[in-house]
Amino acid sequence: MCASRCCEISIQEEYAPDYSHCYGCGTSNVDGQHLKTYLVGAETQSCFTPDAKYSGGVPGNVYGGMIASLFDCHGTASAAAFHRQRSSDDQVALARFVTASLVVNFIAPTPQLQELTIRGVLKSIEGRKVRVEMTLEAEGQVRANAEMLAIALRP
Amino acid sequence: MCASRCCEISIQEEYAPDYSHCYGCGTSNVDGQHLKTYLVGAETQSCFTPDAKYSGGVPGNVYGGMIASLFDCHGTASAAAFHRQRSSDDQVALARFVTASLVVNFIAPTPQLQELTIRGVLKSIEGRKVRVEMTLEAEGQVRANAEMLAIALRP
Repeated sequence: MCASRCCEISIQEEYAPDYSHCYGCGTSNVDGQHLKTYLVGAETQSCFTPDAKYSGGVPGNVYGGMIASLFDCHGTASAAAFHRQRSSDDQVALARFVTASLVVNFIAPTPQLQELTIRGVLKSIEGRKVRVEMTLEAEGQVRANAEMLAIALRP
Repeated sequence: MCASRCCEISIQEEYAPDYSHCYGCGTSNVDGQHLKTYLVGAETQSCFTPDAKYSGGVPGNVYGGMIASLFDCHGTASAAAFHRQRSSDDQVALARFVTASLVVNFIAPTPQLQELTIRGVLKSIEGRKVRVEMTLEAEGQVRANAEMLAIALRP
């Protein structure tokens, strides 16, 4: 799904330089994971293959902290994109959102060494507060879902 | 708080070898974070200072994914310790718990390059299901809280 997006600009690549240091997705963090999220119609999409070291307690399954981390970066990027998409001025600069709360439900083990697909949809927008619902899939099966309340930083 | 515990055995050091590969806290994961959690009376405690690379979007604050990850490992260790503590046989081997759900509330920015203290208390036990409430503090102030539903793997 994501291989075809190599020439597109991700949501994170639009973050202002001062807000681009996140370990999970910041373009300025040289040691970071550089998650890239794209808005495709009414859905956001990220793809990511965690390194083999990110094992859960039982080898072969991805570490739960990695799954929560992917939802964290995917969710704030999604909130920014949905917020702009619904703005009356779609040329407005992207707001930077931070996480107020994150709920993660672990449904089934997530196999290692597979490309994971994270998807997000908008649940609600009230001013600076955006709620995003997400899923994480491996091998075509949803392994975890999440809901985030994200809040835009004031410019 | 944690410096005085250098000679004690952490909950994670009691995990069976087959369950000790977690990136966040497994003793067998040579690349991992090696979080150590201790049961102190009716509370669990972990201390951890994230590396400087774990920045949030704005430098100076800890990455949200790291905070969720610390709660994930602290919570499953706490569930195991509380479960054994309330067993009629306190010599029983430690059960290995996995996360069913994790709710994280980010209350205030968490400063980098500080020792973080994570605390847990038991909320409820019903058979193999244990609920744990947690806080994460920096410089004496609670920066985030969390609630986990953890489930014991069957032996």
